[in-house]
Amino acid sequence: MAESSLPHLARQEQFRASIQHIGLAGFVINAGNNLEYMTGLRFDLMERPVVAFFVPGAPVTLVLPEFEAARASACAFPVRLFAYGEDPSTWGGVFAAAAQALGGLRGRLGVEARTLRVLELRYLEQAAPDTVFETQDGLLSALRVIKDSGEIEKMQRAVDIAEQALLAFLPAVKIGVSESDLAAELTLQLLRAGSSPGVAFPPIVASGPNSANPHATPTARSLQAGDMLVVDWGAAYQGYISDLTRTFAVGEPEAEFPQIAQVVAQANQAGCAAAVPGAPAGGVDVAARAVIAGAGYGQYFLTRTGHGIGMDVHEDPYMFAQNATLLMPGMTFTVEPGIYIPGRGGVRIEDNVV
Amino acid sequence: MAESSLPHLARQEQFRASIQHIGLAGFVINAGNNLEYMTGLRFDLMERPVVAFFVPGAPVTLVLPEFEAARASACAFPVRLFAYGEDPSTWGGVFAAAAQALGGLRGRLGVEARTLRVLELRYLEQAAPDTVFETQDGLLSALRVIKDSGEIEKMQRAVDIAEQALLAFLPAVKIGVSESDLAAELTLQLLRAGSSPGVAFPPIVASGPNSANPHATPTARSLQAGDMLVVDWGAAYQGYISDLTRTFAVGEPEAEFPQIAQVVAQANQAGCAAAVPGAPAGGVDVAARAVIAGAGYGQYFLTRTGHGIGMDVHEDPYMFAQNATLLMPGMTFTVEPGIYIPGRGGVRIEDNVV
Repeated sequence: MAESSLPHLARQEQFRASIQHIGLAGFVINAGNNLEYMTGLRFDLMERPVVAFFVPGAPVTLVLPEFEAARASACAFPVRLFAYGEDPSTWGGVFAAAAQALGGLRGRLGVEARTLRVLELRYLEQAAPDTVFETQDGLLSALRVIKDSGEIEKMQRAVDIAEQALLAFLPAVKIGVSESDLAAELTLQLLRAGSSPGVAFPPIVASGPNSANPHATPTARSLQAGDMLVVDWGAAYQGYISDLTRTFAVGEPEAEFPQIAQVVAQANQAGCAAAVPGAPAGGVDVAARAVIAGAGYGQYFLTRTGHGIGMDVHEDPYMFAQNATLLMPGMTFTVEPGIYIPGRGGVRIEDNVV
Repeated sequence: MAESSLPHLARQEQFRASIQHIGLAGFVINAGNNLEYMTGLRFDLMERPVVAFFVPGAPVTLVLPEFEAARASACAFPVRLFAYGEDPSTWGGVFAAAAQALGGLRGRLGVEARTLRVLELRYLEQAAPDTVFETQDGLLSALRVIKDSGEIEKMQRAVDIAEQALLAFLPAVKIGVSESDLAAELTLQLLRAGSSPGVAFPPIVASGPNSANPHATPTARSLQAGDMLVVDWGAAYQGYISDLTRTFAVGEPEAEFPQIAQVVAQANQAGCAAAVPGAPAGGVDVAARAVIAGAGYGQYFLTRTGHGIGMDVHEDPYMFAQNATLLMPGMTFTVEPGIYIPGRGGVRIEDNVV
């Protein structure tokens, strides 16, 4: 216990230091990956609000359901728990008690806008009426964006599992099989290969015209000769994920597609080559996009070139042209340029880069 | 297309009527099940905000990423789209344009606190500074809580798939197998039996002392003789889920557990018997709890007795004693009393009721 809590303690110390550095009175994190990253405690985002207050000088202070209190109190670092029962009309009082224990929570409190819900925000506003809840998405992200060696090992394992699953899955790819059956088969192979039961995300299997949709959902459409087939899948391993894409031709595709695939492969290479420490994240997007635009397909590449990965399938840093964030050792992200021609098909090639 | 859009159109009409009925200027829904229920459009909750404005007298107005615009404009009902590119610094302007197209959005706008994030709220507050964003969780829920026959068929199918998967899974339950291997095997059987790739939720497989935690996560612990084994699993079918629990004894458990299991089974029956149209939801909880308290185990049953199910694994109505919501035909929920004895083990029996 003591050993495994070390990264959490170190992260909490760093977090409290950055909270003080930018003059915040504290920070509130709700259920999900951020809370697990900081404490090792996993709470799924549900209808019962779970929040943790990180206030310099005070123990980690949690508001949570009574039946979760036992495992939270087993933490190897100081925690203070405010637990509530099943009647929502009592929850406001428990939030108020937590705020009072933290000296009334005056000043500015940081929040993560992408994860905190109006549910928690309204309880917090009532419990601490003198507090300004300020979006500070960068603070936690600055910690999480640099992966340590333990995290990178887990992500590498998630990539290995995904690749092993794809190889086991490929024999099932045949004309006449539906996208949704293929997606189920790929999920099954991910689990066999050692992915956590949650998997990273339901695989995308998109064929023919559906492959022109970057965020397609598998449908009942069956594979036909001449289809492009986009497979976007990933594994989860000990809380960390992989996120890959490969594109296949089913039989003989339209004459233009082999050339399109080559352009996308070159764009992927150009993006990866631009991903060096000290370069801006936006440079990855610019480099990949230049290849596609240069080949005359610029209008068919509307998404950004990539996104950070880690505990979340999408996290910082995001690869869009205007992103001036400088890439640093330990950052992990996707490079996934694509060309999507409405009504005809698409090609995407996605790799995971550290 | 026209046919499948009928339920969405009818739902939108009902929704607009209730919006007007309680004097709201409109309602904002963000990415997720609520939006899919109202429009048939599936957007996952990600770092890019997606919101739909439902304002009486105006078409459904969507703010969304450019690359999602094509499928949104293919809706069989009138929509107005405000699409943004990949640079977040431009998103505020797109929200403002949408608000302007809706006449500036004065007055009170309803929101769902359990799903809307601070991310969307802050964009909305800036785009419509004269608007009060008011939590109105009951409005959408009042529509969703009554399932039509099409929804109930899907849920029945999700129950059938889950039961079929359990039977296929049981031969894998052996002393020495770990909880997480069992959870992977059960997930695999769910997919084989026809569950959607996303499944309903990662199965809970909790053994021995872990079975005393109502929300356990599968661990590396291996089954041992004498363990209680709680299996909480469900399937997803066409967007609807099932959520069941069965408890098994591995070999010979402590002498007290067969008796505990009997008490829980009786509590489950009492809860189901109290679930009749016209009775309060809280009555289900009171009836189940009375059986457990009467047997002297009241202190070991800290959770509510159940929760609504449908598109979400947890939704209205919630079965806690104080809930005065009257049960109505078409409501679907779990009845899942349990007795959890810290350090020793637990028993939970969960059924899905319509």
